[in-house]
Amino acid sequence: MSNIRHALTARRADDFAAWYQEVISAADMAEESGVRGCMVIKPWGYGIWERIQRLMDDRIKATGHDNCYFPIFIPLANFEREAAHVEGFAKEMAVVTHHRLIADGKGGLIPDPDAKLEEPLVVRPTSETIIGDAMARWVQSWRDLPLLTNQWANVVRWEMRTRMFLRTSEFLWQEGHTAHETADDAKDHTLRMLEVYRACAEDDLALPVIAGEKPENERFPGAVETWSIEAMMQDGKALQAGTSHYLGTNFAKASGIQYQDREGSQQYCHTTSWGTSTRLIGGIIMVHGDDDGLRVPPRIAPHQVIILPMLRDKSEDEALLAYCEELRAMIAGQQALGENIRVLLDKKPGKAAAKRWDWVRKGAPIILEIGGRDMENGTVSMLRRDQLWSADGKPAFETPSREQAAAAMPALLDAVQKALFDQAAERRDANITRGVGSLTELETFYAENQTYPGWVEVEWSKPSGAALERVVETLKALKLTIRNVPIGAEPVTGACIFTGAPAVERIIVARAY
Amino acid sequence: MSNIRHALTARRADDFAAWYQEVISAADMAEESGVRGCMVIKPWGYGIWERIQRLMDDRIKATGHDNCYFPIFIPLANFEREAAHVEGFAKEMAVVTHHRLIADGKGGLIPDPDAKLEEPLVVRPTSETIIGDAMARWVQSWRDLPLLTNQWANVVRWEMRTRMFLRTSEFLWQEGHTAHETADDAKDHTLRMLEVYRACAEDDLALPVIAGEKPENERFPGAVETWSIEAMMQDGKALQAGTSHYLGTNFAKASGIQYQDREGSQQYCHTTSWGTSTRLIGGIIMVHGDDDGLRVPPRIAPHQVIILPMLRDKSEDEALLAYCEELRAMIAGQQALGENIRVLLDKKPGKAAAKRWDWVRKGAPIILEIGGRDMENGTVSMLRRDQLWSADGKPAFETPSREQAAAAMPALLDAVQKALFDQAAERRDANITRGVGSLTELETFYAENQTYPGWVEVEWSKPSGAALERVVETLKALKLTIRNVPIGAEPVTGACIFTGAPAVERIIVARAY
Repeated sequence: MSNIRHALTARRADDFAAWYQEVISAADMAEESGVRGCMVIKPWGYGIWERIQRLMDDRIKATGHDNCYFPIFIPLANFEREAAHVEGFAKEMAVVTHHRLIADGKGGLIPDPDAKLEEPLVVRPTSETIIGDAMARWVQSWRDLPLLTNQWANVVRWEMRTRMFLRTSEFLWQEGHTAHETADDAKDHTLRMLEVYRACAEDDLALPVIAGEKPENERFPGAVETWSIEAMMQDGKALQAGTSHYLGTNFAKASGIQYQDREGSQQYCHTTSWGTSTRLIGGIIMVHGDDDGLRVPPRIAPHQVIILPMLRDKSEDEALLAYCEELRAMIAGQQALGENIRVLLDKKPGKAAAKRWDWVRKGAPIILEIGGRDMENGTVSMLRRDQLWSADGKPAFETPSREQAAAAMPALLDAVQKALFDQAAERRDANITRGVGSLTELETFYAENQTYPGWVEVEWSKPSGAALERVVETLKALKLTIRNVPIGAEPVTGACIFTGAPAVERIIVARAY
Repeated sequence: MSNIRHALTARRADDFAAWYQEVISAADMAEESGVRGCMVIKPWGYGIWERIQRLMDDRIKATGHDNCYFPIFIPLANFEREAAHVEGFAKEMAVVTHHRLIADGKGGLIPDPDAKLEEPLVVRPTSETIIGDAMARWVQSWRDLPLLTNQWANVVRWEMRTRMFLRTSEFLWQEGHTAHETADDAKDHTLRMLEVYRACAEDDLALPVIAGEKPENERFPGAVETWSIEAMMQDGKALQAGTSHYLGTNFAKASGIQYQDREGSQQYCHTTSWGTSTRLIGGIIMVHGDDDGLRVPPRIAPHQVIILPMLRDKSEDEALLAYCEELRAMIAGQQALGENIRVLLDKKPGKAAAKRWDWVRKGAPIILEIGGRDMENGTVSMLRRDQLWSADGKPAFETPSREQAAAAMPALLDAVQKALFDQAAERRDANITRGVGSLTELETFYAENQTYPGWVEVEWSKPSGAALERVVETLKALKLTIRNVPIGAEPVTGACIFTGAPAVERIIVARAY
């Protein structure tokens, strides 16, 4: 099908990074803001985030959590207390030192030297410590447990190299923080939230993921266990799409989160934390995008169906708009995927063909184009974004009757949601290589599969400490990292490819974002 | 009814400010965070905000706006460009000067002197200028207009004196920003959004408001017109609950927002902006609260109906819970006020009576208490929060059958929503004094009505410049401000009470938050 004239300039196969940037700009999702490392999220990008937020929030509330809001500023003292925290990831932070601007006498403004804060404040890179402080106030007795909180907020990490959605200095996320009576309760909850993430990623975002435990070296600083969901991008790299941490009593001790147990003595709580972010949108692009732009899974599409009248600035337009409005009402009155169908009748000025390609690039699941001839015939010209091209390299329009099209919409949206998941799952499964039995084989595999090599599942002996460090260094030389130990993997059968000792579990190794 | 033992210690009539603080703490809405001027919004307070946000967002989207997200940091240059802006309100701002923390060698952390930003960044006090920059990029032709954007975000203003929800250094808000072809379009839109605010305040929050235009001295810096909705608190003070500004081409010129008009020449856009914030929650407390705590209007109540089983840690509990769960399902299966009813079966450990008073203080609209005897009789003990006390000073329980109670719920929630609005509207109307015909009468009125004097509507000649300044000073001596020029007020009949010149309109003067 080399005669297809794709809607983007860059090709995934040629330059994945350039293609990624082009999708973001062609789908009008986000742009650079002019403020270092911060992006402007435009309506289509933010609309997708609002959908993710709504669906994820429903799942988080359904598991018993309440949302709270905590201050954006965190006192320095909280970071001093949590030295481990700081060393882990949070050295690069935005620090507020003044609370007033004054004129510099040369037409500019400067921070007022008389308005220096006694103690600088940090713009939150995470709310771990300030929520810990609150939990210490809120928890008194076992009756207050489990304490299940969540927050939707913006956070700031001063990143040196940024890439839209994947790594930005400011990003949007949710962070859940919970406190429990026992280690078992807290561990169960850690896995419950991992399952919430898996279900949201797979069922809502159509992102197939591998859920599993991170190795010791990839744990969140201070965590006892870190679990993740990992999604495979179309370039074969892994994207960590969500993490869930069992923190033992480490954070409870640092923040003084104690409760009186059923026997009347003071105990430290076992806590968990877990988060997902606007990074998920980067994953959606890199999993579902194609050479014509983005393809948005219907569940998270701000508009699922676009009706495009071919207006001609003539008197016939009125009848055409009425025909389209009737169709809009027929579709809007139905449900798909458990919600009212989100249908947009796009009346904006502009050529219908140009607008069609805008919606193709944005990835709206279904486009219904309607001109005078369609109206005469009582039909619509229907384009399914995930089946865009016919065999002869033309847009694969179908022309059902208007009533047929409306009636087909619930099943069609369901089918697109499923098709996007199935395509991604098939690609992922085809690109996980198993049976690599030695380090040499691993090296050969990545040497021979330069462009998009995918992931490799190997058996290992779960080394720890210095032995693990050597494994990490070995992998680093191949630009590889250990992603996780998949839940439900096959039993081990042989030796560790790194140490030669008997293997105890399987791990996924991959290049990663 | 002096024999009533109210659920709060403070009384509105005695000390309104202390009462306000007690409601926030007794209803478990928010607390001090330990970070200067920033609060922690707890589940019940944040749940109310989520409801407000959802209903307001639906109204904003229904008027054609898309949500976007803009960076939290704003370069100094933007404020330098907008000198008027800075003088207006934004001098006190949180200034980020460093991007790294390092150890000070004494166990503490300090901003790294080597990581000083070349240009300091300001934590947004509003996104006016950065959204202006984006609009300048996004608008090219008349076809791009109107451009209708909105943002939900946190903003920071370094307030010297803070009060929870009413004035905090960090607060949550929405800010709408739009660009239009003509002055008429922009002015119409300014009023359209004022009407959205009025409708949301009155129909969703049950807050009766007076919508009108602000006088020149109360305009947003740079605005051509500023409009507001003003709500009357139970202490007779006014709370500005939302503002909508017509900005002419002032902001378009500052940011370079230009479009090619239908004739092909370059024009500046006419812009608007408008905002509401978590301040609304302060208004809800001060309008609907009573000496037993908060009363939440059903439309914005996170839980509208609470089912409280009187558990006894005995084997009978199981049957009681089953009885309650059946009731919960009956209620949850119904709609009230256009949405599924939000009902909570509260199984938390604790005495039922103590839990009842917790929910009274939080202001859940309906409480259904169910003990063994209720179950035997097939009844429930029902308490309506807005009709809490019977004539003999006891909680005014009714005991309908379980099925009657469930069936009554939609009408009951509707009635509570209406009753809260009607009470507030009646109180407001009773406390707006008209017919004050001279400045002396105004002075006498406020001298004679010390505690909760309410508002006064007077006629004035709409002076401007220095003459207006004198009016403002005169009012300031009485601790009064001009709230607005009510839309739809009676025609004027006499002279301006300040200047003696013929009056041209009516204004509301009041003490205000």
